Order: sequence, then structure tokens, then C-alpha cells
Amino acid sequence: MKSNTVKIGDTLIGGGFPVAVQTMWKSPLSGEIGVILSGIEELKDIGADIIRFAVPDIEDAEILSKISKKSVIPLVADIHFDYKIALKCIKGGVHKIRINPGNIGASWKVEEVVRAAADCNVPIRVGVNGGSLPSSFRDLKDISEAMVKAAEMELNVFEKLKFKDVVFSLKSSDIESTVMANTVFSSRYSYPLHLGVTEAGPLIPGIVKSSIALNTMLKDNIGDTIRVSLSDTMRNEVIAGKEILKAAGKISSGITTISCPRCGRASFNTHEFLNSVDSTLQKINKNITIAVMGCIVNGPGEARHADLGITGSGDNIVIFRKGKIVKRANPSEAVRLFLEELREI
Amino acid sequence: MKSNTVKIGDTLIGGGFPVAVQTMWKSPLSGEIGVILSGIEELKDIGADIIRFAVPDIEDAEILSKISKKSVIPLVADIHFDYKIALKCIKGGVHKIRINPGNIGASWKVEEVVRAAADCNVPIRVGVNGGSLPSSFRDLKDISEAMVKAAEMELNVFEKLKFKDVVFSLKSSDIESTVMANTVFSSRYSYPLHLGVTEAGPLIPGIVKSSIALNTMLKDNIGDTIRVSLSDTMRNEVIAGKEILKAAGKISSGITTISCPRCGRASFNTHEFLNSVDSTLQKINKNITIAVMGCIVNGPGEARHADLGITGSGDNIVIFRKGKIVKRANPSEAVRLFLEELREI
Repeated sequence: MKSNTVKIGDTLIGGGFPVAVQTMWKSPLSGEIGVILSGIEELKDIGADIIRFAVPDIEDAEILSKISKKSVIPLVADIHFDYKIALKCIKGGVHKIRINPGNIGASWKVEEVVRAAADCNVPIRVGVNGGSLPSSFRDLKDISEAMVKAAEMELNVFEKLKFKDVVFSLKSSDIESTVMANTVFSSRYSYPLHLGVTEAGPLIPGIVKSSIALNTMLKDNIGDTIRVSLSDTMRNEVIAGKEILKAAGKISSGITTISCPRCGRASFNTHEFLNSVDSTLQKINKNITIAVMGCIVNGPGEARHADLGITGSGDNIVIFRKGKIVKRANPSEAVRLFLEELREI
Repeated sequence: MKSNTVKIGDTLIGGGFPVAVQTMWKSPLSGEIGVILSGIEELKDIGADIIRFAVPDIEDAEILSKISKKSVIPLVADIHFDYKIALKCIKGGVHKIRINPGNIGASWKVEEVVRAAADCNVPIRVGVNGGSLPSSFRDLKDISEAMVKAAEMELNVFEKLKFKDVVFSLKSSDIESTVMANTVFSSRYSYPLHLGVTEAGPLIPGIVKSSIALNTMLKDNIGDTIRVSLSDTMRNEVIAGKEILKAAGKISSGITTISCPRCGRASFNTHEFLNSVDSTLQKINKNITIAVMGCIVNGPGEARHADLGITGSGDNIVIFRKGKIVKRANPSEAVRLFLEELREI
């Protein structure tokens, strides 16, 4: 079923629009607004489409409102318990809020938040988390069923209030229940889905779990925005998110890197070179395949389909295009010459 | 189809034995043998089952033979072009070799290598690489079909010589052709399969591609040994390999980490804590779930299924077991107390 379209600031998600990559701000909302704004710009440059902020108190709501007015991409306020924080964010111009009616309390509070959201065209994400289900669902044996039921309970609140601008997420720290819950939910409802595996862990296990779970759903056309949740940097969350979208065939723009793992045969330090060009590569939107190979023996041959490649040959470096050598030079020139060729493409 | 069992040193792969995790040594085989041996031990400690070495010349074959005699896990020699290097490794006690008959040349050379391998009970891996197919298959439109055909061509050589101790790999830098080639090959033959995505790229894209491809195959019971090829450290290749096996349900031992990505609400530095305990955790074989949570609000609740958890509460840290708080202490005590509790479990 095609999902509804929801507008978050100037960004559309759902309804077949490109799957948006999110991350979550990892520090408190204190300090210089300018510093946060340039952090947001850096994340946008490498592919972040939306950024979420925890807003634990009313002062933070004020700060986030100020930031939202100047942000280059839409921002989301993550709010628990206190409906007043939600109201402040909505009226302050934050582009989306994440609340669960179930933890806001009295229904008049929820109604007030929803009415304000409707007035200000601010969408709401409801985030069901397999680890913190309402107690009434906690004892269901099938956790994915419990997650869907919890989402439906929240959904009823919005449907009664005729508020349709809702995005749902059903996250668990387990791949299978996350996939199952989203599959069931998306077969029943057309609300856009925000995908993620929650508390996925440190960099490597987090990327492993998120890649498998998100790819499975995205390949089934489930999911309108994603966040790779890692106990690691925001930058790495965004890069991982983009790579998952690429692998699932959801974006074809950006650099694809074919690179040697390096072995005892290697004459070119692929790791060091990749580190030197990484930040430039992350910002390129064109669909280009580059190859960074350890040795001349396999390099240009194995990577003959790459638009641009580099490897070592004796004391020199060799740059090739589609398997054909176009330049030989001193290793100290590697980064400069490679980026020069890249700009030409 | 259940795969044949192949013995590599003292390690069995195939035939339903546990899927073995491999990595490849990333430096030349020069320097102190003792240094390489302790590097091998470190990799074994975090879960490496087999390590492969590039052996570009005859001196390296001698060094690797010496190392193999003292290594705590089986070693594999990766050989191109020169059959004499293969003979030296086989006779020198290296536990497995990787050669492609197609690039060894004259059939008498291949026969000599295979005869030596049979005499010494050394298995051979044939590694078909989608990027460096023999020219006769290079123009086939379907790359996975070309990979299978290339593998079958090599296979015929071994079958004629009645040598059965063969492991195959069919790797491409593309997820779909890797999965398809292995799926087709494993439906036709019972030789054990070594899985991997070749030249998968830097850490994040490499793990994304490998997770998706390897998980798809492992879930279908395809694959007897794996290597996550990354332009990154051997350590990270091994950790990623283990995590993929865990995600695919192929190993249930070892630590599962549920951890907060951290947000503006967090009072406990989960990243720093995870870094401090990481090397200890990687070495634990027991099936334990730990939770490293950013705040007391969600921490013990969301992670109540974890065997052991830690989070911050005001200026203190709190350690909990199955959601019940068992200790409060100063943050400087966090690592020590946590590992103490872990040892008790």
C-alpha cells in the first residue's frame, strides 16, 4: 500500500518521495546556537535530511524553536511526558514532534497538542518501542504483535481527533520483531513509517543489525524515513543510513567505493588514501563508482567497471578510468590528482 | 543440500559444523615471526577461526610455513600464478591454500599441486571473483551466471583429478550477483562455500553490503565460512563477521549489546563506557545480553530483559540485572564494577 505523504518543514516523506535519512542530536541543547546550526549544516552536507533533538524541558523547547527557524533542514522535537513542551515546540516552529499520546497522560492534554499541531501543520511521529511497551501489552508472547497493538492504541487517539498527519515507528532491538511489526502495520495502514532498530548497539553490531532489518523492509517497499541508531557519532549514523539506502536500491546517487581490504601483496595504502578523501566523497551526489585498489596486478583489471580508480605500482601511484591508466605520479600527489580527475567526471 | 566436510588444520568446516570466521593478514610476511604469532592469537581471542595470508613469493612461503607450525588457528596461503609457491606452502605445513587452477597455467603444474595437496591432506579453496573472470566469461550479461560458469570450469579440473577437498568462493563487489551466484552453485554442488563480498569498501559501506549479502545466504543455510572484506582493520573484519553470524542465528554465544545511541537526555556517556569495556566483551563466549543505557528514565525499564545493565542517575552510575538495580556508585567505578558483575554471571 502506498503511504500517505507528510510534510515536515519543506521536506516530503511518504507517498513515494525519496526515503529521508535521519539522525538524532547527541548532546544537550545548550551552548551556542551557531555551533549547533553549523553542526546541522555539516550533517546535511553528508546526506542528513532530518535531525531529531531530545527536548527534556521547556527551556530546550525555546532553544530548539530558535534553531528551527534558521536550520537548513527540518528538525524534530522528541518529547516525553510533558504536553507543555510539545505545545511550545509546535508553536515555536519546530517542524515535527515525536510524542506518544500514551505517555502524555490525560486526554485533554493530548487533544490540546493535536489541535495545536493541526493549526500549525506540524506532523507528529508516534514511536512505539518494543522495550518500553505499555504494561497492558508487555506480557504478549509475540513482541511484534504487542508493538502493533500498542501502535494501534495510539493511532485510535489520532483517528478520533481526525488528525492524519502522523508518522509511525515500531522499533525493537531485535531484527525479526522489528521487521514483523512494520510488515504487519504497513499492510493495515497507510501512515508513513520511520524505520529503525532501537538501541542497536555500538558501530559494528549496530550497522549489522540495522542493515539487515532495514534492507529487508525497504526491499518490500516499507519505510519512508530511516534512522540508523548507533552508540557512535551522528556522522556515522548518516553515512550508514545512506549506504543502506544505496544497497536497497533506494538512491542511486553518490559515490560507490570499491576498495581492497589490503593484503600482503598491496603496494598502495588504501586505508590511508580512503581516509584522506572520505569527507570529500561523502558530499558528492553524482552516481560515480570509484576503485581504490592495493596493487597493480589486480587493480585496473578487477576494477575496470569503475569510473575512476587508483592503485600503486612500484614507487608510483597509477590513476585509471574504466580500467585504462590515465596518470602515473608520485604517491604524495595521489589525493590531489585523484580529486582533480573526480572533478572532471 | 548439506555441504561436504573439509578439515583445515584441526578445524572442520562444512557438513553442519559451525560457520568459521576468517580474516586476511594485511601486512607483508616480513619481520618477527613472534609478532605475527601474537597478532594471530589476539585475533583468535576475539573470534577469528582461520586467517589467510597473501604469499606473493617463495620466501614468504617459507615464512608462512614456519608460522603455521606454531599458529593457534589454521592458516591459509593465498597464491597466484606460481605453482612452486603452492607446493612450498603445502609441503611446509600451511593448513589450506587458495589457488585458481586457471591462473596457475599448464595442467601439469596444477596436477602437481593437487597431488601434493592430496598427499598432505591440505584442502584447496578456489576463489572466483566477479571482477577478474577469465576473458571467456567476461562478456556474459549475467555476472552471477558467469561466476558460476567460471567456478565450474575450475571444478572440472579437480574432479578429473578426483580431488574432493575443495572449498569454493564466488565473490563480487555487488550484493545481488554474489547472492545469486552462491545460491545457484550451492543448489548444484555440495562443496563447502566461503562467503564474502569482495572489495566491499571502507568500514561502513563494507559492513552494510556484507551484512545484507551474507545474512541472505546464511539464512538460506548457504555458507560454511565467511570473511567480511573491509578496507579497515583485521579486528573489525572479525568483529563484523561474528556479528553477522549472530544476526543470522548461526552463533548464540558471545555478548549481545543493547546500547543507547545517546541523545540530549543522556546523563551517562555510553560511547566512552563501551570503548572502555569493548576488548573485554569481545573475548567472552557466554551468551549474555548487556545494556548500556544513557539515562535512568528509560534505562532499566527498556532493558529489563538484559542480564546486566548500566546507566547514569544524577551524579552516580547504576548497575542493574534484569531490570533490578543492584548497585549505585561513583562514575569512576563504572568499568570495574560492571566487569565484576559480569564475571559473576
